[in-house]
Parts: sequence; C-alpha cells; structure tokens
Amino acid sequence: MTSGWNNTETMATMAKERENPPFDIRAMAIAHHGSKRDLELKEKFMLEISRDPAYYAVDIHDLTKDQTRQRTMAKIGSLVHCVTNESIEIFQKRMEVIGLFDPGFWTRFGVHYGLFVGAIRSAATPNQFSYWLEKGVIGCKGMFGCFCMTELGHGSNVAGLLTTATLDLNTDEWIIHTPDLLATKWWIGGAAESATHGAVFAQMIIKGKRHGVKTFIVPLRDPKTFQLLPGINIGDIGMKMGRNGIDNGYVQFTNVRVPRAYMLMKHTQVTRDGEVFEPPLAQLTYGALLQGRTAMVADAANSAKKALTIGVRYAAVRRQFKSSPDAERETQLLDYPIHQRRLMPLLCQSVAFGFTALQMTNLFEETSRALESLEPGDPNLQATIELLKETHSTSAGLKAFCTWATLEAIEKTRQACGGHGYSSYVGLAPMGQDFAVHCTWEGDNTILALQSGRALVQAYQEARKGKEMGAGMAYMNNLDKSLKAKASEQDLDSLEGIDQGWACVAAHAVKKATEDYEGLLKSGKSRDQAFEACSQSRFVAASVHTSGYIYRQFRAAVERVEKSDDGVREHLELLAKFYGLWQMEEKAAFFLRSGWLSTDLLDKVQERVTDYCAETRKFAIPLVDSFVLHDHTINSPFAKYDGSVYTSLFRAVKRNNPQGGPHKYLDTVKGLLFREDAELEDVDEAIGIDDEIQEIQEERAEAEKEQNEQKEAGVTKEAAEPDGKNKE
Amino acid sequence: MTSGWNNTETMATMAKERENPPFDIRAMAIAHHGSKRDLELKEKFMLEISRDPAYYAVDIHDLTKDQTRQRTMAKIGSLVHCVTNESIEIFQKRMEVIGLFDPGFWTRFGVHYGLFVGAIRSAATPNQFSYWLEKGVIGCKGMFGCFCMTELGHGSNVAGLLTTATLDLNTDEWIIHTPDLLATKWWIGGAAESATHGAVFAQMIIKGKRHGVKTFIVPLRDPKTFQLLPGINIGDIGMKMGRNGIDNGYVQFTNVRVPRAYMLMKHTQVTRDGEVFEPPLAQLTYGALLQGRTAMVADAANSAKKALTIGVRYAAVRRQFKSSPDAERETQLLDYPIHQRRLMPLLCQSVAFGFTALQMTNLFEETSRALESLEPGDPNLQATIELLKETHSTSAGLKAFCTWATLEAIEKTRQACGGHGYSSYVGLAPMGQDFAVHCTWEGDNTILALQSGRALVQAYQEARKGKEMGAGMAYMNNLDKSLKAKASEQDLDSLEGIDQGWACVAAHAVKKATEDYEGLLKSGKSRDQAFEACSQSRFVAASVHTSGYIYRQFRAAVERVEKSDDGVREHLELLAKFYGLWQMEEKAAFFLRSGWLSTDLLDKVQERVTDYCAETRKFAIPLVDSFVLHDHTINSPFAKYDGSVYTSLFRAVKRNNPQGGPHKYLDTVKGLLFREDAELEDVDEAIGIDDEIQEIQEERAEAEKEQNEQKEAGVTKEAAEPDGKNKE
Repeated sequence: MTSGWNNTETMATMAKERENPPFDIRAMAIAHHGSKRDLELKEKFMLEISRDPAYYAVDIHDLTKDQTRQRTMAKIGSLVHCVTNESIEIFQKRMEVIGLFDPGFWTRFGVHYGLFVGAIRSAATPNQFSYWLEKGVIGCKGMFGCFCMTELGHGSNVAGLLTTATLDLNTDEWIIHTPDLLATKWWIGGAAESATHGAVFAQMIIKGKRHGVKTFIVPLRDPKTFQLLPGINIGDIGMKMGRNGIDNGYVQFTNVRVPRAYMLMKHTQVTRDGEVFEPPLAQLTYGALLQGRTAMVADAANSAKKALTIGVRYAAVRRQFKSSPDAERETQLLDYPIHQRRLMPLLCQSVAFGFTALQMTNLFEETSRALESLEPGDPNLQATIELLKETHSTSAGLKAFCTWATLEAIEKTRQACGGHGYSSYVGLAPMGQDFAVHCTWEGDNTILALQSGRALVQAYQEARKGKEMGAGMAYMNNLDKSLKAKASEQDLDSLEGIDQGWACVAAHAVKKATEDYEGLLKSGKSRDQAFEACSQSRFVAASVHTSGYIYRQFRAAVERVEKSDDGVREHLELLAKFYGLWQMEEKAAFFLRSGWLSTDLLDKVQERVTDYCAETRKFAIPLVDSFVLHDHTINSPFAKYDGSVYTSLFRAVKRNNPQGGPHKYLDTVKGLLFREDAELEDVDEAIGIDDEIQEIQEERAEAEKEQNEQKEAGVTKEAAEPDGKNKE
Repeated sequence: MTSGWNNTETMATMAKERENPPFDIRAMAIAHHGSKRDLELKEKFMLEISRDPAYYAVDIHDLTKDQTRQRTMAKIGSLVHCVTNESIEIFQKRMEVIGLFDPGFWTRFGVHYGLFVGAIRSAATPNQFSYWLEKGVIGCKGMFGCFCMTELGHGSNVAGLLTTATLDLNTDEWIIHTPDLLATKWWIGGAAESATHGAVFAQMIIKGKRHGVKTFIVPLRDPKTFQLLPGINIGDIGMKMGRNGIDNGYVQFTNVRVPRAYMLMKHTQVTRDGEVFEPPLAQLTYGALLQGRTAMVADAANSAKKALTIGVRYAAVRRQFKSSPDAERETQLLDYPIHQRRLMPLLCQSVAFGFTALQMTNLFEETSRALESLEPGDPNLQATIELLKETHSTSAGLKAFCTWATLEAIEKTRQACGGHGYSSYVGLAPMGQDFAVHCTWEGDNTILALQSGRALVQAYQEARKGKEMGAGMAYMNNLDKSLKAKASEQDLDSLEGIDQGWACVAAHAVKKATEDYEGLLKSGKSRDQAFEACSQSRFVAASVHTSGYIYRQFRAAVERVEKSDDGVREHLELLAKFYGLWQMEEKAAFFLRSGWLSTDLLDKVQERVTDYCAETRKFAIPLVDSFVLHDHTINSPFAKYDGSVYTSLFRAVKRNNPQGGPHKYLDTVKGLLFREDAELEDVDEAIGIDDEIQEIQEERAEAEKEQNEQKEAGVTKEAAEPDGKNKE
C-alpha cells in the first residue's frame, strides 16, 4: 500500500465527522419521525427486512427483468402473513419502509392491496365486501388483483375512458368490451403476468344509455393454471424507466361476461331490471385519491433523505485535489464551498419535506375520519366539504412540487458523486428512475399544480370579499398588509420575518393570477377558457404558495419542539431559516417583483445561504445519521455508515461479475479482430478498360480519318454503297 | 370501432399540421445543418444505417445486457470498412449520426477510435505511430483498444493518479503496477470484455524519481484466445444508468512488464539510460480535450432535437379532455397554453443549441489548425495560446450548460408525454439515461463552469485595464455602458435590444464575481482560496455569460441567413428573440438585479414569452420536420412521421412480448396463491398453561395457608425439621 489512503482512512474520516455532534442524534431522530414509537417501528421493520432472504440486496442491479419479478413474488410471500395479522396503521408504516427499499415491489403489492382491495373496500356494499373477503382477497389466497383504469388513449381524463360495460338484461350479466385499440387498458400493473382479477373501470351502458364510468371486478386468469380466460387478451408492455419489478401489461376485453353483482355498488346501484340509483354526494367518493398523494409526499421526503445520505456520506470521505502542494491529504469534497452549495440546500430541503409530510398525514387522517363519520343529512356536511376541498388542493400542490423537487434532488446528488454516480451500484441512478413516475401517476404534476392554482385564485376572490381563510392561506386574511410588506435586514434572521416574506410573495403571485384570470373573463372568455389562458400565472402562484406553505410547516414543527439543551430545536431553527432563505434565492425574481426584497437585500440573502451551507456542513453527518436509515435499506456502498465506501463498492461489483469462465461473446470478438477483409480489386485495372477505351477511340479516329481522305478523293459514295465490293 | 378516434385520425391530424408551412422546410433544414452538403451527408448515413441489420431497432429495449453488447460488436463489424475508407471529416459526421441512434455503441467505438487511437495519434512519435498502424489499430484488426485513465480514487484530478510505471533499467522495460485498491483503473470502457490493449495513464518513476503522469500502451489480453495476460486482473463494473452497450470494467496491474518503446514519446522522451526530456510547451498538449467537448455540444443539440421531435409530434396528435361538452373531439395537447409553455421554449432552445454547435465546431477547427501548424519558435505562438485559452473557456462553459439544459429538456419532454413517457419504448427515458453521463465525463460540469467563471473574472480584470476582448466577451470592452444600460419596451422586440440586455446582465454577474474575488484577496486569502470561496458567484457569472453567448451565436447565425421569401430568416429571427426573452425570464432575478429590467418590463417579457409559445406552436411540426431525423434514427413510436403513434407503439410492444407460451414463473405464483398457511395454534390454550398456573397458585396458597395455621398452632418447628416424621 503506497498511496497512504485506503479504506482505514475513509473510516477514520467518517468517525471524525461524528465527534462531538452539536445535538442529540436520537432526540433529533425522534423529531424527524414525529414520535419515539414511530421511529422504533421503522427500526423494527428495517431490521426485519434486512434479515429476510427475500430482500437480499447486493445483486439486484444485475438481475434480468424476469429474475426481478420472481423476487417480487417471493417478497409478497414473505409479507402476506403481516397483512392479515397487523393493524392497517402498522402495516402501512411497514409498507412505507419497504417502499423505500424496493419501489417496484411496493408498487406491485400496492396495486393489489392499495388499489384493488382499496377499490373493493371503498366501493363495495357490505355483502360484496364479505364475498371477496371470503374469496381470500386480503391475504392473496386464490386471487391477486390489478387495477384496470388507464387506457392507451386516456390517462388524466378518466371520464373519457372508452371500455364499455353493457348490461344484458336477459342473462343479468355485464358485457365488458374493448371497442378499439385506443380503449385497450394500458399500463396495468400486475396484469402482464401475476393478476387473477382486475378492478375494471368502464362506461356503464344500460338500455342504450351511458351512465358514466363505474368499477367492475373481472376475473382475468384461471388461478390454478394461470391460463387467460375466454375473451381476455393480455400482454406485457415491456421495459420501463424503472420499477421493473412490477409486470405492467395491456388488457383487451372481447365481450367478456361477468355477473351483475360484480359491479361495485356502494355508490351507484343497478337493479335486476336495470334501474340505476346514483349516489347523493358524488364528490365525497374522491377521498380515496388523497391517500396516494399523501403517501407520495412522505415518499418524496424519505427518498430525498435516502439520496442525501448517500451523497453526503460519500462527500465526507471522498477526497480530490490538494489545497496546497504540501497538504498531507487531498481535500474532502464536503469542504469545498461549491460542493456545500450543491448538497446542503438539498439536505435541508429533505428535512423540510419530512416535517411537511408528517403534517400532511395528519391532515389526511383528520379528513378521512370526518368523511367516514359523515351520515346522510349530517350538519357537518358543509364543513367536511370545505375540509376536503382544502386537503385536496393542499395535497395536489404538495404532491406536485415535492415530487418534482425530490426527483431533481436525486439527480443533483447523483451528479455530485461524480463519475461513480453513473453506476447503478451507487443507487442514485436507479432511485431516480424508480422515483420519476411519481411526477406523473395519481395526477400529472402539471395538472395538479394548475388545480392548486385554480383553488388559490378562487380563495383570493373569496378573501377579497372578506371570507376568513384557513391556516394554509392565512396570508390572504390581511391582503393589504401582505401585499405591501417590505423586508428589513433583521427580517432575514427571524422565522417570523422570513414568514412575512413568503406571505408577501404568495399574495402577489396569487393576485397576479387572479388579475390575469379576471382580465380574460372581461375580454369575453368563458371561465374554463380564462383558466386555461392564465395557466402560466396559475402555475407560478401554486409554486410560490407551496414553497411558502412548506416553509410554514417547517417553522410550525420547529416551534413545537420543546426547548432543551439537546441542541435539537436550535439546529432545526437554523435549518428552517436556511430553507426559507434558499427558496427565496431560488425564486428571487418573484421576491424582487413583489417589492419585499430590494436588490441589496437579495445579495444579503445570498450571503446568508452561503453561510448556512457552511454551517450545515459542520453537522451534515450527524444530521443524516438522525434520518436513521439502515445500510440495508439504502443499499449503497457510498452510504455505508462506517465509511468503507471503496471496499464495499469493489466487493459488490466483484460478487456480481466474477472473473473467469468462458468469454461471453468470444466468437463475435474474434470474428471481428481476425476477419479477412475482401481485397478491394481495382476492376477498371483488371478489365483494362481504360487502355481498351483508348484503343477503340484510336481505331475510330483512324477510320474517320480514312473516310475523310476518301471523301476528299471523291470515293465516298462507292464505299458507302450497300452492294459494294467488300462483300466477298 | 366505436370511439371515432383511431389511427387514421392521428394521421389525418398530423397531415393537417403540415398544411401551408410558413417557411420552406428544406431551406430551413439547410440552415440548421450549416450547408446542403452536410444535410445530404446526414441523410445518406441515416438511410444506410436504417437498412443495416446490425442497427435493427425495434427490440432494443427488452434485450439483456449481454445481447446488447453482442450487437455492439456486430455494429463495429459493419463500421470498420468505413473507418479505413472514409476521410476523417466524413467519418466523424457518420459517427455523429450513429451516436444519436445508439450512444452506447458510439461510446465503445469512440473509446477505441477517439480515445485509444486518438492518444496514439497525438502522443506517439512517427515511428511509434507507424508501428501501431501496421499492427492494425485503425481498422480494429488483431487489436481493439481501451483508455485506462480514471481510477477508483481519482477522476477529475488526473495528476493525482496512483498507478505507477517504473523503468527497469536492466531489462529496458516499464513495470506497470496498481499499488492499492484506490489505484484500480475504474470505469474503463471496453476493458471488461472487448479490449486487447489499453492506453494506460500512470506516474512515471525513473531511478526513484516521479516525473508525472504519462501514457503507456499495455497489452491486456491475448487477441486469439481473449485470455487475460499475466498480471492483468479485469472485471465488469456492472450495470450503469445507461449506455450498457459498452463494457465498462476495472483493471488491476500487478508488476506487468512492457517494452520502453510502449510509452508514447512525442512529448516526453525517455532514453535507454533513463534520461528524461520534457516537452517545451506542456499546455499545447491539451488541445485534444477540446474535441470531446465540442462533440458534446453538438450531441446536446442533436439529442434535444430528437427529444423534441418525439414530444412535439406526440403532443400534436394526442388529445385529452374536451374544451366543451359538445366539442366534436378532444383537444390536441399542443393547443393547451400550458403544454405550449412546457415544450415550445425547449424546442426553441434546441434550435439555438444547433447554431451554437455549428459555431463551436468552427472555432474548434480553427484552433486545431492553428495548433497543428505551430512550429518551434513560431511568432504566432502567443496568439495561438490566446486562441486556445478562449476556445478552452468557451467550450467549457458551453459543454456544461448545454448538456445540463439538454438533460433537463429530455426529462421535461418525457414528463410532457404523460404516463407513456415512463415506457422505454417511447425512447425519452433511455435517451435521458444515456445522455446523463455527458454532465460528468470529459470534465465534470460544475468544475468546467467554475473554470469558465475563473476565465471571466480574469478577463474582467484585464478589460478594466483596457485590454480589448474578443467577440465572445465584447461586452467587456465598454463596461460602463454595459453596466448602466436600461431596457425600453422596444428593446424587447429587437435582436439588438435583447443583446444589450444580455451584455448588461453578464457584465453585472462577472463584476460581482470579480468583486467577491478581490474582496477575498484583500481579506488575506490566497488566489486559490479566494477563487474557491467565491465559487458560487463564479458559477452564476458563467451561467449568465453562457446564456448570453448562446443567444449571440443564434443572433449571428440568423443575420447570416440571406433574406428571401422562403420564410426562413423571418422565423429564425422570431425564434432567436423567443430564446433571448425566455432565458431572460428564466434568469429574471439577475436582470432585475442588474437594473436592465424593471418589474413592469419583466411582466412584458413574460407576456411576450407566452405569445411566442403560441406563435411557435403554429409551425411546431414543420419546424421539427426541418430537423430531418429519420424514423429509424429516432426509434420512437411517438415520433412517427406519419402520426401513427398508437399502432406503432402497440406493434412494437406486442412484437417483443408475444402472448402464449408457458407462464414464466407459474410455480412461484401458484405456490403463493395456493399456499397452506400454518394454522396459528393458540399454544397457551393447547398446553392449558393458564389453568395450570391457576392450579399451581391455588396449591401454593393452600400450602401457605396450612403452614400459617400450623404456625399459629405452634407446630411449625416440628414440621420444618429435616428429620421429620414424613420421611417414611
């Protein structure tokens, strides 16, 4: 060993980073997780999966698609015991941890348990629910579900789905049918290989009349042989950007018949005679959408923390370039100001998202309880609808901007790992590929952001009329004050001061969107047209509002932490200010435009952000330690708790790609290197065409010359005669 | 067919988009490509590869890694004829097209031809060059090279590489050696399976003295058997984010001996006695780095155009949601203002990058010619060094910001395709995965951006002293004017007005970086420390400067287009303004800070950008048509020229995943669905432990009670005696 820089040294460097942490790491961890109980539950689940052979992690990047899917089934096998024996709340926490480890598997199980069983749970009558329960739906016995909603031609526009379910009154059956290619069910997770049943969304047609999209349980395969049932055509849709552990497929139905009672009838009922009863409160059935979005905000926070744990731990032990020729060692990446600028704001953001996710989960649970306890004619109906509206709009904005920001954070962290970040083994590339779908499913981010922007415009109009807004939009309650606020330099150093800045900029952004909208209305556009035409300013309003909302959640969480000498509150307060000011710098144009920041103060904001980057760097390792992510859960050599990054990477790479054995495509390589190139023959030369042409030309010239001479001698006519003397 | 919306309709929609294009598409295409000749060459290459079976494209997403690499070798086989028979210039154009089709293969061939052969070409003496030429290096006969530069522990810091090459004076050989794990050659493209020789970068050691990093040609495998040679250990480094068609590996050398003459000696010579002659002008040897960066700017432009062709053609035929309930059809995505906002600026940017790449290529060629014609003692030396400096700094900034922007453009375009964007078949996900490495290799983008920022600071200092700057930094020639400029509304509508804005904002950004740097110097920091500490403002300066530079290249290209009635110049002018204003909006905070824009004018900029989005939408399809990318080159069902997006996707998916055949993991699925769960026996109940405990306790209580009674009766002592009456 001559380099003087080996694994022992990276481990020593890491250990040094942990000396004298400025806060109690365990207390910080409890703050991140909301409670000691939730932290301990997560630790329990991480330990369990790390020891379960179904969750073996070292070889996953070099598996084929089929091998990965086999693993998916093995993991389901190891989980069905839990799903039938744990409370829903505990099981969901378990799934959150599993989702962080293996998003592809999480998706496959989530399709069955969250979407398929979820559809039955929320849309079946009690008798229907008991029927499927007895069939074994919860524990995946004898049946395993998929969720057939999207089609080749329709994703966002669910009401426009083309698959039909036509009631045959003679046989009391539904005829499920795919009328054309565009109506093919597409992207159906689990359909390609593993599902026996589907929850199929189709246009209900009775006596020639369309009643809109309803849900039907349709058997797809014989669960004993896995043969497709008559009229069902299914195929794999092939490789995807990520999550290849789930078998997405397409499904075409050709006049497939199912009993009338296979339509889920909690909301809409259809009698034996084809009479239809619609539900009184259609909007309340959409509460189910919220769960997915809430889970994605949490997953964004968790994934960001996982990514930053990799990036920050690697940057702590990676050294590159000496600060001076006689420096003993090269400099740790974390000590470069530009590397701090690359990673520290993202680290801070992941903490902010964590607290926001805790609060979003609370809001979701409150809303669910209110919805579940609602009775017909309930006096709380209006309040519940208001709550649902707020939760819907908040979750839409958060889902959009938190998943976008986290996808970007994963990619930036990957790039901050230099060339190694391009290896799947480091974990950030596959994490980004798996994560990316969050920006599209369960509501395309752009569409959700615009929904949130529309809600803000409407709220602004109501606030202007004097209506009191909830906590999330409290800055609209004193619009004049919010709009006219100006920062002093002290404001940049207090939680309250920064809060006022976000109130001001959000008020201005929402005001601009509202004015654009109202201007378009005045110019004669319809409401819908006007909203379309001002979509860019709606989008900006949602973006600025949501950043401010996240800052406020972070601030509120900090202020709930009890003051003590464990250093937790003080450092969370530092991070909250850091987040507030960094986002201010990122969205600086809106702050300048609102008048809250002067250009001089913007320079002060930038200085402070640079300082906070340097401050946060000092406790960056204790901070990622407080995220409490098991080495197995992260599954990256670069995030090894003990700092053994290089040996871990080398061991993993070598294990999966053993040397020796026959060369995989020796014949191809040899055939190339020892080929006999066909000699390029000079065909002109071989035929001697040029000499020949010259000869021909010379002969012709000779003949012509002769003719001319004869002509001149007056003998041309004779020589040209057909019956001349040359005949013999 | 009941939906009334099928393939015929998407094709009709696409045809309609091509009616009455507002410019001559062929003339526009020639403008993009710089000349008719270059356009026709590209068309020739696209046609050739589309018919070559080695380039079969429909199945590539579902191949395994080994299958993909077999294809790589087949493609090399189909290319070696061209490499030996075409001029370098023509062959490079061919490679540009091939790189757009298959970046993984491009990388494998580029490693051999660009890096390995390139190293020999630029660093071998004439005799050495002839030697390797005769061995077959150009046409890959009997040898196939790789480029062993980076190590596990060193990427950016090439001077810090740890591999050693020690001269053995007794045997006249180099001993190539890997001293420890960190010195392992890592990421070596082609090493894992296909290379016979490597160009190895190692610290040259002679008589105990280190002379820095030099290049050595080292045989790795017996080309006949592909067995590793003694002392060589090689393995695959496993799956990567993309470009898995190339076999990246690690290489460890253990005392491997090669002849002295296998060191490339054009620059540094080592004699038989171990005497070392260093080159007089070390900096001129770095010209080779420029070629890669120039190629990457071109690849960024080409890849962006390919991505946008997919996104724009799909958005033209994809319909979602009706604008009103009685609309005949759903609305084309391209007609939504927000979708125009998502795609049109990126489309415009790809055109800007295209013109910038043409100009960068010219600058590179000019620099190369100047370098090649340089003689010792040349009077042009200083001018050439200045030119090299400018080319270096310009290419560094362009490589960094164009590759970042294109990676983001690919991902945004992918998201704009909705759920389908997540399928590999659509092509955007794999394109992003392949492209991402451009942000890291041949100079990490962040490091390059900082280099560019450092050059700007130095130029600013020189300009302040009165030195005349070249065209790229002309705004520094009248700093006072640039810094004090203010926009009028008319300025937003002229090429010159927008140019002034970029001059102003760039001058301010460079000024700030310079002032930060000089302030740090005054506070006592060394030059290097001061540059590190102001890296954030250096980075901003490089970013703003480069956007302005790209705008100016675009403007200059527009102004070179001859005025005619073909509509080309007029539409390019529109796009140049669009690009200039959109980037102004993106970097609005710097424009407000510089004072060039007022907040009112910023609103005007935003309005114009929205208008330009709507304008560009009108000719978006003719514009992507003018990029002239063959359906085969793009290989995406969503970019089909004829608009047949859905049938093309369905056909491709079905071809690769045929129905029928045995289920791939039937046993696993059945084993899961029909498992016998172990009955959870109530062990407490089965053992009857609770009844038993009760009995035991009752017995004990009884005994105690008895004892107490006896005690009270005074008989305790007898009963407790060891030799009591119970003995018998």
